[in-house]
Amino acid sequence: MGDKTFYPGESVLISPQTGEVGLKIAYCGICGTDVHIYHGNMDHRVKIPQIIGHEVSAQVVTIGDDVSGIKIGDRVVIRPLQAGAAIPADKGYTHIGRNLKFMGIDTPGGMQAYWTVPANTIHLLPDNVPLREGALIEPLAVACHDVRRARVKEHEYVVVIGGGPIGLLISLVAKSQGANVLLVEINEKRRDLAEKLGLSVVNPRQVDLVKAIDKFSDGVMADVVFEVSGSTNGVKEMTRLPNVRGRIVMVAIHSQPREIDLFSFFWKEVEMVGARVYEPQDFEMALSLAAHNMIPLEALISDTVDIGQVQQAFEQIDSHPDGMKYLIKCTD
Amino acid sequence: MGDKTFYPGESVLISPQTGEVGLKIAYCGICGTDVHIYHGNMDHRVKIPQIIGHEVSAQVVTIGDDVSGIKIGDRVVIRPLQAGAAIPADKGYTHIGRNLKFMGIDTPGGMQAYWTVPANTIHLLPDNVPLREGALIEPLAVACHDVRRARVKEHEYVVVIGGGPIGLLISLVAKSQGANVLLVEINEKRRDLAEKLGLSVVNPRQVDLVKAIDKFSDGVMADVVFEVSGSTNGVKEMTRLPNVRGRIVMVAIHSQPREIDLFSFFWKEVEMVGARVYEPQDFEMALSLAAHNMIPLEALISDTVDIGQVQQAFEQIDSHPDGMKYLIKCTD
Repeated sequence: MGDKTFYPGESVLISPQTGEVGLKIAYCGICGTDVHIYHGNMDHRVKIPQIIGHEVSAQVVTIGDDVSGIKIGDRVVIRPLQAGAAIPADKGYTHIGRNLKFMGIDTPGGMQAYWTVPANTIHLLPDNVPLREGALIEPLAVACHDVRRARVKEHEYVVVIGGGPIGLLISLVAKSQGANVLLVEINEKRRDLAEKLGLSVVNPRQVDLVKAIDKFSDGVMADVVFEVSGSTNGVKEMTRLPNVRGRIVMVAIHSQPREIDLFSFFWKEVEMVGARVYEPQDFEMALSLAAHNMIPLEALISDTVDIGQVQQAFEQIDSHPDGMKYLIKCTD
Repeated sequence: MGDKTFYPGESVLISPQTGEVGLKIAYCGICGTDVHIYHGNMDHRVKIPQIIGHEVSAQVVTIGDDVSGIKIGDRVVIRPLQAGAAIPADKGYTHIGRNLKFMGIDTPGGMQAYWTVPANTIHLLPDNVPLREGALIEPLAVACHDVRRARVKEHEYVVVIGGGPIGLLISLVAKSQGANVLLVEINEKRRDLAEKLGLSVVNPRQVDLVKAIDKFSDGVMADVVFEVSGSTNGVKEMTRLPNVRGRIVMVAIHSQPREIDLFSFFWKEVEMVGARVYEPQDFEMALSLAAHNMIPLEALISDTVDIGQVQQAFEQIDSHPDGMKYLIKCTD
């Protein structure tokens, strides 16, 4: 199925049931997943018509029964996961359990004026974080989860392959933890932005990455490699860069099997961990980083469009691969 | 290069230098690596003529200066690793450092009557462990290292893909730690032996492994998968079996890149760690398991040949893929 015409959700507030909260959405970011949905790549999962969007900042306007710790007017962000029925193979990891529902993909999402959500998906936005930046807390929580899965420590050498929004946020979070970060990105404008934000960047089409990280790290090589590119080249490079017991974090979604050098896993006792979405503590970390101005979130916003221009926003993303994060302004 | 004619090492005791110990070898096991060397597959690394062999039990016959804690007559086994000059990318992991020398591959080994080795490679064999079983401590230490890398816990469900000597030992060590182990092996004789030793086994050509582990684990699926087969099928299966946050241990040496389903790493936050040789504590664990009769080492010995029949032993291994561990009796 080709590109979709997007119909913004109706501006109707559904009264919250017990345990739910009614929100007036301020901003909703457009995620790479939303673009995949727009292109029809997720038709097997997304039931049309669907209100999509899951990177949201909002204000509480109504509160259902049995909700505590939240009051009308609170500025909030949403952790858009609803745990389904647990199965033994989930081992209690509800954030990626078999029956997980992802709000904005499997259920209605945030690209609308009003949204009613379970109270347990809400995190309070610190007073000093603007609502615009609040819409970036969700992708920032992804990056926090990835960095936590990598167990990044101070002074470690970190290579991030792929400098889109998530790769850039991973780089900034790892740097905020005291790591030495080298970002690998082929797009010049994305490299320029990353450099402006204080990151070291290389173009893998111009340098040999093994030599680059060897020089960058004074021979230590990569303690951690994040594969965020989703490309065959990224997978090829990711095993060449780690040092002994180095860690690779599989952030990208590779929907096709990829050829991997398994020998390097054996030889250097390399480790690879997958990382998907986030747990509550990742949202708390993201909110804390934002509250302490550790991450220049505003600098990642490429453009903000009114909810009536959503269709144009998706078209703009397709025609501007340099862009970083696009926000939809859902209400005034 | 084709198969080699094997010349047993000369029965000459080289006087130990400072920090060295002279050994009279009792038994030396034949490792899969030795068979690779015999087939000429490691000609790039092994300088001919070379005395190979690294699975050794022995008695101390001479002791150089500056050696403590070892006396003439001690029954010992050898951890055949000599750390080379450290480089930053080794991060202090001397057992797999860039300049590591593996005794019996990179330097003369144990298929001889007398062998002079650095004292720091020696572990004392407990009194109640026969010298024959002592020759299996090295592969048992490999298995202990693999199980330790996997962080196997009591009651966990463990799948071992490949039931050769190392796969069988991994299964037995994991079981000794209280895990529920399912061994996957295509060879009927190897399955029979494993079953005789109390292991649960399946033939992957007769059952669907996902269904088999689902049933075996009551839906928990594999907490840990050891890939020991070195096969493309093994790599294909290894990502299908883990549960959420399940761990894969890459034990086999895959000299060719393999196609892997990276999506399952992302989706279930699966982890994969490489495991190579051992550290001193793995030898201590192996010796402790042997001393407490936790592993039926004698049952793994397929045949014992005199050192004069080494050539025939290698030929026998090639013609009997069912066999498990072959020992060379180096002295009376």
